[in-house]
Amino acid sequence: MKRILIILALTLSLTAFSQVKHPNLILTQEGVKVLRDGLGKYPLLDKTFDAAKAEVEANLAAGIEVPVPVDAGGGYTHEKHKSNYSAMNKAGVLWQVLNDTRYAEFVKEMLLAYAKLYPTLGIHPEGKNSSAPGKLFWQSLNDAVWLVNAIQAYDAVFDYISASDRQIIENNLFRLAVKFNIVDCNKVFNMIHNHGAWNVAGVIMTGYVLNDNEMIEQGLKGGNKDGKSGFFELISKLYSPDGYYVEGPYYLRYAYWPFGLTATVIDNNQPAQRIFAFKDSTLLKAPLTLLQMTDSKGQFLPFNDAIREKAWTSQEVISAVDIAYSRTNNPDLLYVAEQQDCIMLSKEGVAVAKAIAEQKASTNFRRHSMLLRDGSDGKQGATGFLRYGDGKDQLSLIMKYGVYGMEHGHFDKLSMMLYDQSKLIISDYGAVRFLNIVQKRGGRYLPENKTWGKQTVAHNTVVVDETAQYKAESKIADDKHAEAYFFDISNPAQQVMSAYDSTAYPNVKMQRTMAMLANETWEKPVIIDLFRLVSPAKHTYDLPLYYNGSLIETSVKYASHQTWEALGKKYGYQHLFNTADGKAESDQLLFTWYNDERFYSVNATATPETEVFFVQLGANDPEMSLRPEKGFIIRNTNVDTFTFASIIEPHGEYNEPFEYVNNSYSKFDTLTLLLSDNQASILKFKEKNGNEWLFAIANNNTDPKAIHTHTIGNQQFKWTGVYLFEKYEASKYVIPAKKSGTKK
Amino acid sequence: MKRILIILALTLSLTAFSQVKHPNLILTQEGVKVLRDGLGKYPLLDKTFDAAKAEVEANLAAGIEVPVPVDAGGGYTHEKHKSNYSAMNKAGVLWQVLNDTRYAEFVKEMLLAYAKLYPTLGIHPEGKNSSAPGKLFWQSLNDAVWLVNAIQAYDAVFDYISASDRQIIENNLFRLAVKFNIVDCNKVFNMIHNHGAWNVAGVIMTGYVLNDNEMIEQGLKGGNKDGKSGFFELISKLYSPDGYYVEGPYYLRYAYWPFGLTATVIDNNQPAQRIFAFKDSTLLKAPLTLLQMTDSKGQFLPFNDAIREKAWTSQEVISAVDIAYSRTNNPDLLYVAEQQDCIMLSKEGVAVAKAIAEQKASTNFRRHSMLLRDGSDGKQGATGFLRYGDGKDQLSLIMKYGVYGMEHGHFDKLSMMLYDQSKLIISDYGAVRFLNIVQKRGGRYLPENKTWGKQTVAHNTVVVDETAQYKAESKIADDKHAEAYFFDISNPAQQVMSAYDSTAYPNVKMQRTMAMLANETWEKPVIIDLFRLVSPAKHTYDLPLYYNGSLIETSVKYASHQTWEALGKKYGYQHLFNTADGKAESDQLLFTWYNDERFYSVNATATPETEVFFVQLGANDPEMSLRPEKGFIIRNTNVDTFTFASIIEPHGEYNEPFEYVNNSYSKFDTLTLLLSDNQASILKFKEKNGNEWLFAIANNNTDPKAIHTHTIGNQQFKWTGVYLFEKYEASKYVIPAKKSGTKK
Repeated sequence: MKRILIILALTLSLTAFSQVKHPNLILTQEGVKVLRDGLGKYPLLDKTFDAAKAEVEANLAAGIEVPVPVDAGGGYTHEKHKSNYSAMNKAGVLWQVLNDTRYAEFVKEMLLAYAKLYPTLGIHPEGKNSSAPGKLFWQSLNDAVWLVNAIQAYDAVFDYISASDRQIIENNLFRLAVKFNIVDCNKVFNMIHNHGAWNVAGVIMTGYVLNDNEMIEQGLKGGNKDGKSGFFELISKLYSPDGYYVEGPYYLRYAYWPFGLTATVIDNNQPAQRIFAFKDSTLLKAPLTLLQMTDSKGQFLPFNDAIREKAWTSQEVISAVDIAYSRTNNPDLLYVAEQQDCIMLSKEGVAVAKAIAEQKASTNFRRHSMLLRDGSDGKQGATGFLRYGDGKDQLSLIMKYGVYGMEHGHFDKLSMMLYDQSKLIISDYGAVRFLNIVQKRGGRYLPENKTWGKQTVAHNTVVVDETAQYKAESKIADDKHAEAYFFDISNPAQQVMSAYDSTAYPNVKMQRTMAMLANETWEKPVIIDLFRLVSPAKHTYDLPLYYNGSLIETSVKYASHQTWEALGKKYGYQHLFNTADGKAESDQLLFTWYNDERFYSVNATATPETEVFFVQLGANDPEMSLRPEKGFIIRNTNVDTFTFASIIEPHGEYNEPFEYVNNSYSKFDTLTLLLSDNQASILKFKEKNGNEWLFAIANNNTDPKAIHTHTIGNQQFKWTGVYLFEKYEASKYVIPAKKSGTKK
Repeated sequence: MKRILIILALTLSLTAFSQVKHPNLILTQEGVKVLRDGLGKYPLLDKTFDAAKAEVEANLAAGIEVPVPVDAGGGYTHEKHKSNYSAMNKAGVLWQVLNDTRYAEFVKEMLLAYAKLYPTLGIHPEGKNSSAPGKLFWQSLNDAVWLVNAIQAYDAVFDYISASDRQIIENNLFRLAVKFNIVDCNKVFNMIHNHGAWNVAGVIMTGYVLNDNEMIEQGLKGGNKDGKSGFFELISKLYSPDGYYVEGPYYLRYAYWPFGLTATVIDNNQPAQRIFAFKDSTLLKAPLTLLQMTDSKGQFLPFNDAIREKAWTSQEVISAVDIAYSRTNNPDLLYVAEQQDCIMLSKEGVAVAKAIAEQKASTNFRRHSMLLRDGSDGKQGATGFLRYGDGKDQLSLIMKYGVYGMEHGHFDKLSMMLYDQSKLIISDYGAVRFLNIVQKRGGRYLPENKTWGKQTVAHNTVVVDETAQYKAESKIADDKHAEAYFFDISNPAQQVMSAYDSTAYPNVKMQRTMAMLANETWEKPVIIDLFRLVSPAKHTYDLPLYYNGSLIETSVKYASHQTWEALGKKYGYQHLFNTADGKAESDQLLFTWYNDERFYSVNATATPETEVFFVQLGANDPEMSLRPEKGFIIRNTNVDTFTFASIIEPHGEYNEPFEYVNNSYSKFDTLTLLLSDNQASILKFKEKNGNEWLFAIANNNTDPKAIHTHTIGNQQFKWTGVYLFEKYEASKYVIPAKKSGTKK
């Protein structure tokens, strides 16, 4: 209710806004002045400006071509219309800054050419491959992006164009494009989805330029102006209060683009609305949240659908960084801008270029431990990040226990991945897609994205009965979420997170507790992983772990297979070759692999009957699309309530220049799970040097003052607060003798 | 004969040399002065010196420990004896430069401890795993390296130690160690092999310090002083006149170490001998040759046994760079030294540190096309390098057609590999070994090195009848070599190399011609590959090609296999899974893969019956040691004389930041092999844009003035010199009408 009032108030105030000065979208009159003043002073501005100029000059030289749309993504007309909107937008900036009429003419002529073509267009001939076809492009998403760019170009040259030409351009192009957006694409326009954000952005921007309040209102409040969709509702629904985006880091990268630009436009036109403060400053938090969700090379963490290579140097992140910097002055953002080596051509970008020229940039972007709450209310689970060390030698553990993630979500509740330095050590596959490579199904998502990428077994989380979570049905998963239970990063040497899920599998309750623990006798921190499953019925529980590197040691007496066959028939198992398997034949498992400079070991508890499958991806892959990644699956069958307990441990050094290796063996000897029930889990673990340790966590009480007492055999374990990590010394756990007789 | 005279002369002159001043091995009295003068002035010297000091101080603090040898490589006593010799050597330098008696005491005490231990030692308990066991270490190689370091330490503190202690150290340690080297290890000592070089180095250096001419003579002329082994003969036999080392780049890296050090010692003691000028200055050429055989990250090309990760930053390359720089002043070497970030603590190293401080370093190490002749006489084939472009965007093609390469050679005559930028695009597996990782068979070569790494099918060269070259028997291969036929890099846009082999397979003559061709209408150069086989009998010819990246397109209508089985039973085929196969069903084959930023295509001629197998490495790998590399094998069966003709083509761009892709399709359409016989090969190839090209090479005549004329159908092709590359225009090849009648 409160929000509706705010929206109403904002809308009313916008209605009152009638005098339009051009340009006033991303580039403003003030921005033009700042750009002129900054040129020749700030190298990054000069570089960006020169690149824009070179791009536009090349387009001027080539002449204007506005072809009838024919091709899908990657094809000629697709790329031409993309380069046209880019050139137009930049030519508009050049005209404003340099007042060279060649640039204004170029924009005008191109817009007139589009105004001639546009009314003749039906749905794009390749639109059949899209659920939301466009006119200029095969998908309406690209049409919306075109509009966002074209309207900025028009805004920039508005005052240059004659009234009669303006009428042609507005009536035959922009109003039609807006109508296409709002009416023809009403499903997308009113959708709570990143595609909708582009449509909304284009309509709002066009509204400001054409001084059309109806457009602005529809953009802000949805096609029906009822507040059930539109810009505000998109922010409200798609982002959590921590600036986390429902589909995850890879799509936040893309999704923030129209959000950041549109908010900037609103702020430029109606600063009093404080749009960047809306919903706990979501749009100011999101860029930082986005950048935190990268590895040390700036690549976005590959959970959910994600192309692994995508990094913060992507063009779509430039505006996010500049918008955030100009409003926060966070020097870490300047470091990122230096990596991007490019800025927005606006006052935001100049602020960045100026600060970099003044040597205000940090020497790194500092990533830290954090909890990113999920869901529009922040109460639908979370993604937890535990980090240790800084700069280039940071250990990063990520556990995902939020919502499904809409169209681009994966069935991977309680999944984890681990980075060390810049390397993905325990990995998530990400999306199965060769973005923009036309030979691979036009660059779209491949069938294996559904049959492998999204499946539970593709992730480092437990699979029950060889079936995906939610039976891999988005409709079931869509409104479910895991539950954050405990998250504590107050002590860098003892960081603990724990979460529950009871929605992914019927009648199976899962809890995963992960702790990153350090102490001065260990060369590096280690990770405790307690994955607890509770069910009234018997199940098969598989815990897969995908490692990067070469397996160099395992305790499993495996038989390796001469012929490789798929491990199963569905839910992703059909893509995994069973390359070798064996049983634990003891109560301990060990796996050690080597990756570049270090070694990594997993020690795990087991029963003699615990099976281990060494798997490699690539089965049933008729188009040879899958990377041959490797993993092992720990399987316990015919169990109802069960806990996988393991320690993940980076260790040793492989020094190539000086040709030595040290500590290639795990330092741990045995793990003993003393207790794991609804009350608490208690793990004892022993090093080869004899040192013993105890980690315990209460499983149903987050009161930091609660005292937990558990008697196991002739020992009593007692701690205050949620968890305990201490050196194990048998004498500590002697059960106090009952008080005898009377006091003296 | 001439050489023997030189050796005699040198030996005589050494015998005359009797007054010993210490130190006078690598470090000399002059070197000490230069080090003292340079400290505080040249940052790289300071850094190296400080690191040495820190290492020695840590050893001083820990106290001297000289344990009874127990462990093999990677184990405690092994690493301890290694760290001991390193610390001793550096402590000697510190004593000389700083005159702090703590350092001299440390060396003295440690040498006395060794003098106490050494006489008690038999063969190392782990020596059973070595063909040449040591005493302090499991292999005598390490003992020899120990001696090289320990004798330098002794030389440095010689004047500090009392005569009685000297007697103990010399009699109970160094003379025994030399005796062990020369007498007990006489096989290694007199072996023409890199291991022998270390033994020889230790003996020569000890000879100089102990002023023992017998030792020096044995080091220089072999244990029997007959010149059939020893330092001179090692240089003569192991290096080609181009400074190429018989075992290839990876072992040259290691082998040069004792050669460079020993030559420096000889030069310091007997400069008049001009040891660096010996045999066409082999020892001055070798460091440059070594560095040329790296990729753009400085990693050594992985042909023959090679660990791919090894780079020029390895400690063993530091002295090579410094020795070469101090004698050539080549500024590219300074660039490498900057990457190494470390120098020798000697006058050579100071020269490098000084030049870097004076900003004389190049901004890159420039790699160029070159022919490296193989064999001690340079007449046993070669390795050819064709390179185009410079700096980070260089295309590098390597073809190997020299000798087998001794113990570490591979059966891969006429094999090739291709780099683009820093990436291995068409790859050679290198060695199957996890160096120093004890869990992997003590870090030694794995069985798969023999069954896969060395086999012909592991390389990008033709396999005849699914059998390795020389039936994979080193004894047969050892004295065979391929024949360099033609090599021309005079025109960077038309670089051509061609070689023959008729030793690898009985009654099969092979010729491979590779050309790197550029022209202004192509975005990048392309590579022509003509692999011609001539035999009187019918054979199966397999041409494998191992690509790095993701296959995105092929013309082959393949069936992919649900179950993966090995392609064969032996000669490496047992390690290749047949993942999919099919027939050409036409006269053309196309394969396109994507790697990071670019696309690569192979267009090849075929017959409809040509089979293609898509393979992945990993079959019959019980210890999971093999990387899952991918390739395709083009098979032609039941043919006697046959030519594989193909074009390898880098193309296009995958731009991740700006999310676009261009030219992901090959630009070539059809290849037509017009002729391929003992006289000439003529290939016509056509682009999709209609442009046609002609490449021709004479196969039996390298006369640059020879005129070649070949009539094929109604066309006549004519060229002067070995090869022809030109635009194909049908009108050019009209057969001249016969002169009719009489002249007018």
